[in-house]
Amino acid sequence: MRSIAIIGIGQTKIDEHWDISLRDLAVEAVLAALHDAGRDSAEALFVGNMLSPLLSGQNQLGALIADWAGLRGAEAVKVEAACASGGAAFRAGLMAVASGEVGSVLVVGVEKMTDMAGHDVTAALATAADADYEGKQGVSFVGLNALVMRRYMHEYGWKHADFAPFSINAHANAVHNPYARLRDLITVEQFEKSSMVATPINLLDASPIGDGAAAALIVPAESVTRNEKRVLVVGCASATDTIAVHSRREPLFLNAAYASAKQAYSQAGIGPENIDVFELHDAFSIMAALSLEVCGFAERGQGVRLGLDNEISPKGRIPVCTRGGLKARGHPVGATGMYQIVEVVQQLRAECGATQVDGARIGMAQNIGGSGATIVTHIFKRNS
Amino acid sequence: MRSIAIIGIGQTKIDEHWDISLRDLAVEAVLAALHDAGRDSAEALFVGNMLSPLLSGQNQLGALIADWAGLRGAEAVKVEAACASGGAAFRAGLMAVASGEVGSVLVVGVEKMTDMAGHDVTAALATAADADYEGKQGVSFVGLNALVMRRYMHEYGWKHADFAPFSINAHANAVHNPYARLRDLITVEQFEKSSMVATPINLLDASPIGDGAAAALIVPAESVTRNEKRVLVVGCASATDTIAVHSRREPLFLNAAYASAKQAYSQAGIGPENIDVFELHDAFSIMAALSLEVCGFAERGQGVRLGLDNEISPKGRIPVCTRGGLKARGHPVGATGMYQIVEVVQQLRAECGATQVDGARIGMAQNIGGSGATIVTHIFKRNS
Repeated sequence: MRSIAIIGIGQTKIDEHWDISLRDLAVEAVLAALHDAGRDSAEALFVGNMLSPLLSGQNQLGALIADWAGLRGAEAVKVEAACASGGAAFRAGLMAVASGEVGSVLVVGVEKMTDMAGHDVTAALATAADADYEGKQGVSFVGLNALVMRRYMHEYGWKHADFAPFSINAHANAVHNPYARLRDLITVEQFEKSSMVATPINLLDASPIGDGAAAALIVPAESVTRNEKRVLVVGCASATDTIAVHSRREPLFLNAAYASAKQAYSQAGIGPENIDVFELHDAFSIMAALSLEVCGFAERGQGVRLGLDNEISPKGRIPVCTRGGLKARGHPVGATGMYQIVEVVQQLRAECGATQVDGARIGMAQNIGGSGATIVTHIFKRNS
Repeated sequence: MRSIAIIGIGQTKIDEHWDISLRDLAVEAVLAALHDAGRDSAEALFVGNMLSPLLSGQNQLGALIADWAGLRGAEAVKVEAACASGGAAFRAGLMAVASGEVGSVLVVGVEKMTDMAGHDVTAALATAADADYEGKQGVSFVGLNALVMRRYMHEYGWKHADFAPFSINAHANAVHNPYARLRDLITVEQFEKSSMVATPINLLDASPIGDGAAAALIVPAESVTRNEKRVLVVGCASATDTIAVHSRREPLFLNAAYASAKQAYSQAGIGPENIDVFELHDAFSIMAALSLEVCGFAERGQGVRLGLDNEISPKGRIPVCTRGGLKARGHPVGATGMYQIVEVVQQLRAECGATQVDGARIGMAQNIGGSGATIVTHIFKRNS
């Protein structure tokens, strides 16, 4: 595939933005990405979003946001793959540039979740599951993940407290990220005592929803050879699994994460040992463990060990959630994949201050839709 | 761009399919397209859909349909651009193949609209408009088109009956299409006397909703040089306009249709005089007139003349809606763009029986999202 570079990034703080509309959030991130790149326009806009029809009564975000961002007339479209919408939109935009059809693409992930009552949001999130065979049974999205976590603890003999390092690391890193939603340190004691949501997932296993948008500007790499800021996309792959968790032979093995990571590694000509920073999809602490295993950083059933051994901090063997992850930076679902990509770029540009991974050269972002049904994996490389 | 060919097509009848689920409709069309191509799989699936979150409580259609269609594990994603979702999904799939990232792509447009009450569907369709500045005022989607039609009649002096030929032609052609929803002939008298929906749009100006799915299998053209059935994509472009009609300087000029058609003509190296068949987006009769004008088949304000002069029938100068169009084949919104493409392929393969356009070599499909906010134009060419 044609070589593609990211030359600009932008993001909004994730929060309860009751005074900022969906379109204005998206525009803020888009304009920040353009400003970062020193440009004033792009040929096309790809939007990642999951919930705007349900929570904002708004479809056709492509045309809506393009107009508001000063790109009136430009090609624009929305891509949806539940919580993997951001990563999927980035991949679609990347293929548009790679095809030669479009010279520059802005990709923005945006989600506005806090204008509605919590039960409405819970119902909306359940549309990521199989409506006929999971949703209709009344199981919520956290409920599905709780079943997976319980099974994991049973199979491999881990206690709930063993998952604490994932959340503690995420919160510790978010303290230094001005865009993060939760910027407070947490302890093992707090982790263990927090309110139960769906046994065994408690509040501190779970990522918070939020309003936010993150964007990137991509162009053919050969068009910006002298740009010091550019970050290259060296791996990009997407795969799916059954949408219903009960249809999987091995519910503890994320097939689509394995397949997409394997392909991305192969494209980049590297393996997990070469990844300096990994923005994974810790919607729930169990997902952090499963992602680490299936991407080759731990044996099966041993993902939690990386946390217990302190290997996931910015100074560890495989730093994850260096800007707070879904757990503490926040999880505005359709935007999350773009936050991950923006954060990897920040690491590769050495802009992360206290949570900077020393000498980060290669970073990976993995975005998960549903309980592992759609997974998009990207690998990025520093310019020099 | 790399040359791309369609080698298989499939569709379901458009109807009130109360006994067939969203996923089963999509699978029926996908399997038909694979069967038509003589293949049993594809590397990726792109889904065009607008309303499944709102009407079926289901997101993440990519993973859902891939699994059910026997493509478990394949890359799969949904593309949404209101009623242009089908055409936009086709374009995204086409760029995926053109980029070299994916070797074969199934694109399916699917919509399930008749399980819900009519007022719920009307509210869902309004999400194609600007939720904050149009929807919140209470205007429905047909109401917006009615304002445009009234303005057109005022500006150019046409009577309501002058639009009748569009609907009469569509119904006459649908009689011969077994997949069409409305297969009855209508007269000028019926057209004039049908129930008012939003003045001046009455029932026979408006397309019916429905449940349906249509699919196509695309591959690099060079991989199937000996395939007699193959149809080449020679033009493919997309553009947007303001989402709110009131923001447009000239509400009677479809900027995005003009821009995308111009680019598609240029890619194909042709002009409107070379188009043998045009599947346009007659969601309302006014849209047929506006599309014909802006794509170069009539002067501004003179689109209706083509109907009155009997130039739009299969034997006319520019045959439109040869399988019934949105008006009579039906308008399952997110699927419509794929029905248009499938129908152009049928024409270029000379499979249209009584409504076959003699010697059709080049065909165009134009899919419109919202009141002209997202427009995707494709041009196709017969193999030989």
